[in-house]
Amino acid sequence: MSDSRPIGVFDSGLGGLTVVKSLCSLLPNESIVYFGDTARVPYGNKSKKLILEYSKEITDFLIKHDAKMVVVACNTASALALDELQKHSPIPVLGVIKPGATEAIKATSNNHIGIIGTVATISSKAYEKALHGLNGNIQTSSQACPLLVPLAEEGWLDGDVANTIVNHYLSPLNDNKIDTLILGCTHYPLLKDVIASQINDGTVLIDSAAAVARAVKKSLSDSDELNDSDEKGALTCFVSDIPMRFESVGQRFLGAPMDHVQTIHGI
Amino acid sequence: MSDSRPIGVFDSGLGGLTVVKSLCSLLPNESIVYFGDTARVPYGNKSKKLILEYSKEITDFLIKHDAKMVVVACNTASALALDELQKHSPIPVLGVIKPGATEAIKATSNNHIGIIGTVATISSKAYEKALHGLNGNIQTSSQACPLLVPLAEEGWLDGDVANTIVNHYLSPLNDNKIDTLILGCTHYPLLKDVIASQINDGTVLIDSAAAVARAVKKSLSDSDELNDSDEKGALTCFVSDIPMRFESVGQRFLGAPMDHVQTIHGI
Repeated sequence: MSDSRPIGVFDSGLGGLTVVKSLCSLLPNESIVYFGDTARVPYGNKSKKLILEYSKEITDFLIKHDAKMVVVACNTASALALDELQKHSPIPVLGVIKPGATEAIKATSNNHIGIIGTVATISSKAYEKALHGLNGNIQTSSQACPLLVPLAEEGWLDGDVANTIVNHYLSPLNDNKIDTLILGCTHYPLLKDVIASQINDGTVLIDSAAAVARAVKKSLSDSDELNDSDEKGALTCFVSDIPMRFESVGQRFLGAPMDHVQTIHGI
Repeated sequence: MSDSRPIGVFDSGLGGLTVVKSLCSLLPNESIVYFGDTARVPYGNKSKKLILEYSKEITDFLIKHDAKMVVVACNTASALALDELQKHSPIPVLGVIKPGATEAIKATSNNHIGIIGTVATISSKAYEKALHGLNGNIQTSSQACPLLVPLAEEGWLDGDVANTIVNHYLSPLNDNKIDTLILGCTHYPLLKDVIASQINDGTVLIDSAAAVARAVKKSLSDSDELNDSDEKGALTCFVSDIPMRFESVGQRFLGAPMDHVQTIHGI
């Protein structure tokens, strides 16, 4: 049965648009309703309590907008709030952690996987738990990289500064001889080239955005909720604030101009 | 007449504790009530509307806590919200812009002053307006430095990364031959050493935190509202969230441990 309801996607800000980009590419007929919590970005340095509260508010907002599924396109919220959100929500809620972990397990040869993310994501050990739940023999090395989000938003995607910062964070992972690296933050795909240049040759980079899009497709297919229409789906974007340089930053993540953006104050 | 009411101070996060540190040093008998909006930090990339709304809420909170004056220890809020706050508040409201601009005018010899700050502060041109209001012959060069706040919070206060980033931002100011540089963000005093090492020799650095403390003393003295007690004043800190690494970051800014911190949810 064809289900024309939109997929709900949210993130602390605009980084989750990398997930939207992957969804649009894999499931072009699906409509998407996106919420970027730009008034309260970033989540990466907030408490678990606050992240859970915000995530519940936004999930309720997406359900009100008739979403058939909620995708938590934010590693921090996925790491700290997913279990509670799944209990809270009457519709399925998917995070980015498990799909990323699953792809990493498929990719590794030496069973040593690296993870980079925000302080909150890394401190939560959510990727380690997911990886060990899938395969008890996996060794992990993780690194919090708090400067990579501002670096991506600033648009310094190459050059001296980007290379120096990324090299600083990746050196211990290179020393540990990981062969697979999970980009555990939706901002990091923008820095893929500089990350690839600073990580040991042959290391596989796992982009959670692409991984979660495949997981969404599988879940909707399993529940017979895919949209079978031949028409291109619509993208509706809501944000909680229109910050400085909003359009240029948004376009950088989405890979296309952001049209029809609506501001929602105090959801 | 001695006035024992506290001085209210607020910032988007913990950066304003550099202003508290200067106030405690200059006016040790004054009590201070500090509000750090850690749940909604940073302000530097938010819209003017939102920054004004948050600033009004916090000013009302400080007034409820019997403040005799409100110090906006945040360059972004001072730049975008001070005029409205002064109209809104029944007690005096001081920002950091005018005191910093006044000190810079005193310091310059060649009448060419540089300003560094967040995107919001620099876009507002608040320092330029303040400087030109004081002296129409001043030439200014300004530079937004969005990576310096995360750099200071990360504690990378020296080394390759700090030097490369700071050098990138300061190069155009060095080329323009400024002789005075306003550190237009309360986070930047932490980066004073690396800034001093990357700016042309002989350039005077203006730390708004010290400048605003002197302005507060003058204002309280003029209105006969200084606290004449011989006892050391109390510092009471409120925050809107207890984020990751809160204590270590707070101590870095305050220069002392943060005791008796209370969390206020949804002011």
